[in-house]
Amino acid sequence: MRGFASDNHAGALPEALAAIAAANEGHAHSYGDDDWTRRAEARFRAHFGEQARAFFVFNGTGANVVALRALCRPWEAVVCAETAHVNVDEAGAPEHMGGVKLLPVATPDGKLTPELVQPRLVRFGDEHAVQPRVITISQSTELGTVYSMAEVRALAELAHEQGLLLHVDGARLANAACALGVELRELTTDTGVDALSFGGTKNGLVLGEAVVLLGGGAAKAAEAMPYLRKQSMQLASKMRFVSAQFEALLTGDLWKRPAAHANAMAQRLADAVARVPGVTVTQPVQANAVFAVLPRGAAERLQQRFSFYTWDERSGEVRWMCSWDTTGEEVDAFAAAVAEEVATLV
Amino acid sequence: MRGFASDNHAGALPEALAAIAAANEGHAHSYGDDDWTRRAEARFRAHFGEQARAFFVFNGTGANVVALRALCRPWEAVVCAETAHVNVDEAGAPEHMGGVKLLPVATPDGKLTPELVQPRLVRFGDEHAVQPRVITISQSTELGTVYSMAEVRALAELAHEQGLLLHVDGARLANAACALGVELRELTTDTGVDALSFGGTKNGLVLGEAVVLLGGGAAKAAEAMPYLRKQSMQLASKMRFVSAQFEALLTGDLWKRPAAHANAMAQRLADAVARVPGVTVTQPVQANAVFAVLPRGAAERLQQRFSFYTWDERSGEVRWMCSWDTTGEEVDAFAAAVAEEVATLV
Amino acid sequence: MRGFASDNHAGALPEALAAIAAANEGHAHSYGDDDWTRRAEARFRAHFGEQARAFFVFNGTGANVVALRALCRPWEAVVCAETAHVNVDEAGAPEHMGGVKLLPVATPDGKLTPELVQPRLVRFGDEHAVQPRVITISQSTELGTVYSMAEVRALAELAHEQGLLLHVDGARLANAACALGVELRELTTDTGVDALSFGGTKNGLVLGEAVVLLGGGAAKAAEAMPYLRKQSMQLASKMRFVSAQFEALLTGDLWKRPAAHANAMAQRLADAVARVPGVTVTQPVQANAVFAVLPRGAAERLQQRFSFYTWDERSGEVRWMCSWDTTGEEVDAFAAAVAEEVATLV
Amino acid sequence: MRGFASDNHAGALPEALAAIAAANEGHAHSYGDDDWTRRAEARFRAHFGEQARAFFVFNGTGANVVALRALCRPWEAVVCAETAHVNVDEAGAPEHMGGVKLLPVATPDGKLTPELVQPRLVRFGDEHAVQPRVITISQSTELGTVYSMAEVRALAELAHEQGLLLHVDGARLANAACALGVELRELTTDTGVDALSFGGTKNGLVLGEAVVLLGGGAAKAAEAMPYLRKQSMQLASKMRFVSAQFEALLTGDLWKRPAAHANAMAQRLADAVARVPGVTVTQPVQANAVFAVLPRGAAERLQQRFSFYTWDERSGEVRWMCSWDTTGEEVDAFAAAVAEEVATLV
Repeated sequence: MRGFASDNHAGALPEALAAIAAANEGHAHSYGDDDWTRRAEARFRAHFGEQARAFFVFNGTGANVVALRALCRPWEAVVCAETAHVNVDEAGAPEHMGGVKLLPVATPDGKLTPELVQPRLVRFGDEHAVQPRVITISQSTELGTVYSMAEVRALAELAHEQGLLLHVDGARLANAACALGVELRELTTDTGVDALSFGGTKNGLVLGEAVVLLGGGAAKAAEAMPYLRKQSMQLASKMRFVSAQFEALLTGDLWKRPAAHANAMAQRLADAVARVPGVTVTQPVQANAVFAVLPRGAAERLQQRFSFYTWDERSGEVRWMCSWDTTGEEVDAFAAAVAEEVATLV
Repeated sequence: MRGFASDNHAGALPEALAAIAAANEGHAHSYGDDDWTRRAEARFRAHFGEQARAFFVFNGTGANVVALRALCRPWEAVVCAETAHVNVDEAGAPEHMGGVKLLPVATPDGKLTPELVQPRLVRFGDEHAVQPRVITISQSTELGTVYSMAEVRALAELAHEQGLLLHVDGARLANAACALGVELRELTTDTGVDALSFGGTKNGLVLGEAVVLLGGGAAKAAEAMPYLRKQSMQLASKMRFVSAQFEALLTGDLWKRPAAHANAMAQRLADAVARVPGVTVTQPVQANAVFAVLPRGAAERLQQRFSFYTWDERSGEVRWMCSWDTTGEEVDAFAAAVAEEVATLV
Repeated sequence: MRGFASDNHAGALPEALAAIAAANEGHAHSYGDDDWTRRAEARFRAHFGEQARAFFVFNGTGANVVALRALCRPWEAVVCAETAHVNVDEAGAPEHMGGVKLLPVATPDGKLTPELVQPRLVRFGDEHAVQPRVITISQSTELGTVYSMAEVRALAELAHEQGLLLHVDGARLANAACALGVELRELTTDTGVDALSFGGTKNGLVLGEAVVLLGGGAAKAAEAMPYLRKQSMQLASKMRFVSAQFEALLTGDLWKRPAAHANAMAQRLADAVARVPGVTVTQPVQANAVFAVLPRGAAERLQQRFSFYTWDERSGEVRWMCSWDTTGEEVDAFAAAVAEEVATLV
Repeated sequence: MRGFASDNHAGALPEALAAIAAANEGHAHSYGDDDWTRRAEARFRAHFGEQARAFFVFNGTGANVVALRALCRPWEAVVCAETAHVNVDEAGAPEHMGGVKLLPVATPDGKLTPELVQPRLVRFGDEHAVQPRVITISQSTELGTVYSMAEVRALAELAHEQGLLLHVDGARLANAACALGVELRELTTDTGVDALSFGGTKNGLVLGEAVVLLGGGAAKAAEAMPYLRKQSMQLASKMRFVSAQFEALLTGDLWKRPAAHANAMAQRLADAVARVPGVTVTQPVQANAVFAVLPRGAAERLQQRFSFYTWDERSGEVRWMCSWDTTGEEVDAFAAAVAEEVATLV
């Protein structure tokens, strides 16, 4: 049953499979000392600037933990939104495996602001308190919202003024860039982002994420990265099969196609359900997610027909994710079903 | 340049790629709640016994660390051979990420014996000392040797008598089983092994390993496994692409083909070089590795023509690994080159 | 300069010094296998019930981390007030050293309630989320407030209903018990508390805290405690010098004297400053702390004469702690100075 | 029963108790911001050189773990003797709490040498292997032997040539210095030692050890120390009671008296038992320990009269420790008992 549960329920882009197949030729050095990896690294430099250093890992939790380990010393801490994936969906890996304390901040829409972060930037030099070192934001957020360029820049400025670094959990960075109509570099390096978890899986790869050090205060973490990646169990033996996919994704504008499509589908869905009386879309639809509240009972009935998650048991808020392979027909059928189930109840 | 450097320099079996492609169909629940994973788990039960529980992870270090975390409490320790991968090739992940102290034991051939292990099984109940909980062996070993069934059984008996568990790092378990001419279950469950890291990558997968709990004292670790796998950054989002490969590998006897071939190539190489005066094969050739010492200078010259590693800088001992795709012609050409370079020097 | 900065600025009770001196006789087994420790353990059983198991450690952070390590598996989490010492004053030790994720909850007065805790008790069985296992409360709290018996009981009931344990950070448990006029057992074992960090230092010892397992769901943690205490670097070599102090403190009602006195001094101070126009006492004064807001500028002037901390830079709220050796004269002189400085400004 | 089990079975020096009593005056800032601590720090500078930075902690395991955490990044490792306290008597704290992998080396006498260490200094730059960063030696060793000045210097030179640091576990450094007849500075700073765990407890304190950074490559670790000490649960609240003891111990030559006496007693014991036929002293007696093998059965009989440990169950080797309060009469009586029990058996 195809549905709207998660963008990782979709399969892989044909280009990703083709890249794996093409990389399956002869012998190659393992652990990244191969031509596919070198070319993929070069693609990252092309997209994020010559100073960018990309390190391929297996999954998003791995990317976040390796990145935060590389940026923080054991007594340093990371400010994040309360709803951040690192805080609520990584089974405590940042704390237990990374040894990093998170300083979660409540937000209305999954987005940090300088005003929200500032109160956590205290007690510098006090040995009893963890020392804030990184601000991490999810772009796009877990609530389907997108930081504007100015919003990212403001957080980068705050971070740098206070001697901190700005990290982006970019599991859906492509969706954010497409939503804003900007290039990857503009949204990251050029707005002051220091380091990045760059998502491949949700954007159509079989599997693969990248930690990208963008320079600035994060540049010196490069020395540590190979050891931390290996120690964090994130170093692929036959690396070429991961990096070949990234090479494909970052060649030309392939990365935009799946993300832009998923965004468009979410917009189409939001537009359709907005016209259904009794349905409230609860977050701005800026990337590939729609959050909504339905009349009581409607969600449960709908879940018997389509797969999706209830986000908040209390309020009944639901989450509908669109993926790179969601079709317009599926969206329309689903929106019709929403209207139908709501109508039944009213 | 194809060579004899490592069995992870080879690519993937066509069947592994085909399995990935076939799994790329429609939507599937993520994180293992999918049909491919269910079928692959069933294949593990078929091969290892109905009580076996398999958990798929990304790589060998991940498999070992997750397994040891599941079997040990924070003050418990793991006896291993000094040459074990967990001890020398995992960048400290067992200790730093797993919080597990290793108790390394020197061995002549990479194999533990009850006599070697027994002296480490001391100080039970002494709060100042870590408490031995697991004996881990590599099968086949990092030195290309294979534990006989009786040798495994003897270690299992020692472990169980002392209240410990026997874990096998089976990155090359298929090679060992083929070498011994036994089924996977005979070599593990039936000889008293409690838990296993089962290797896929070196036996022809694109990527993928499995932690397998075989029952007995390890059975109760199953409850912890989902949390530990996720927290250890080893839970694949689009799991079907990992499990589909295992399904293929464990359907019929596919798993035997690449391993048996690699073993045969190593034997062919060993036989050939054994006839070269001045070359000493230094370990019994029982799986897919040949260790040898050449006349001084020969290895360096050979390395300009073929890729392989010097294992011990001091003694000059070299390691030649055969993989599932090593050809007889390659072996013969390499053996001829060995003879040639040695002859040049004599 | 004596002041109101912290109850750990005071020295030690004469009885504590006398106990140390008396314990300095001949040889004794180290690490707690001595008569002083056995007698002190018996005193804990006398005060907390026969099932209670006390383990002496060095400091409060040590007590909390050892206790939480003993109660939680690596993927389990601890609900606490945002203002809890474990969350803000232990330099990330619970996370980094204990591997425990904290789930902080905002409170008006440092006190958790079932209503505040309930929303964090979600996602049981979801491998992506840490699993709540412990609720920890500070008694008395970091804001000088005290949980009533009923309030503790309500949290214990919630915890047990949900399969969790209730832990008390009792660095100032004696202050709470005196404030409520109850015995230690009534406030802990009898209200359903499972485990406890029992404070000695702030109540007049030279140094020393105890982890106390009170039975119930925490009983089985006793087996792990010796190893965890040692591994957590909290096992004193010449233990008798720590336990002798606890023996003294828990003989008769000595433990009540310093705590009750400190509480009385705080009450005296609160009463006095409450009469000063412009001074607002911001938290109920229930133990040995007074929190207040003064007219702008007054605190700074006062800090030139007396030592105390500004609690909240933004609001200007200050904290005045009374200790076991604070005198009535000191309180009166300080209250007079408060009145004086405030008057100067008005 | 006084005996020869451990130098931590002795009580505290009268001067240590007097220092605690004298420090119990009025209020003092907590956590080391007090005059006793400042004076004690100055005493360390006087003894170890102006560049020395001392940080007081609770116990020896705490000192070692904090020191190694300060010197190592997460992927760096520590070469130690197999018999080192960090390796066998700290319940895995270096690995589990410090995240540091130890590289143990077998030695005949508890002493590392450049020849023994050199083979572990390999694989620099290889991401799969932990990177050696520290050589740690125990001075005097767990086997009662003492490194000569030249031996320490040789290890320091090796360390520095290879970009490593030399750490000394000096739980019994005073014994070593007295044995060699040198000042503390000569034995450490002047021979190239970079960092030190300086023992107080075994040399007559109630409790207390110090991490001392001696400059050179360890100097930059000073910035991290306050955070690491606090996070490692080693920061004393009423610090003055720890530091006052160190101030006393390091004023004049007080530190020499207990250590020199314990050494002399061990020598007296060794001399006496050496004359007993059938008793073999198994290690050079250079500090305050005597290791010996007795005729079968003698040790058990002796242990019914005096407390001491069997060091090696297999060989029956026993350890007799002398402490600062061991008397000549006790030694003579014990030696007589040894002779008696041995005679009974022969």
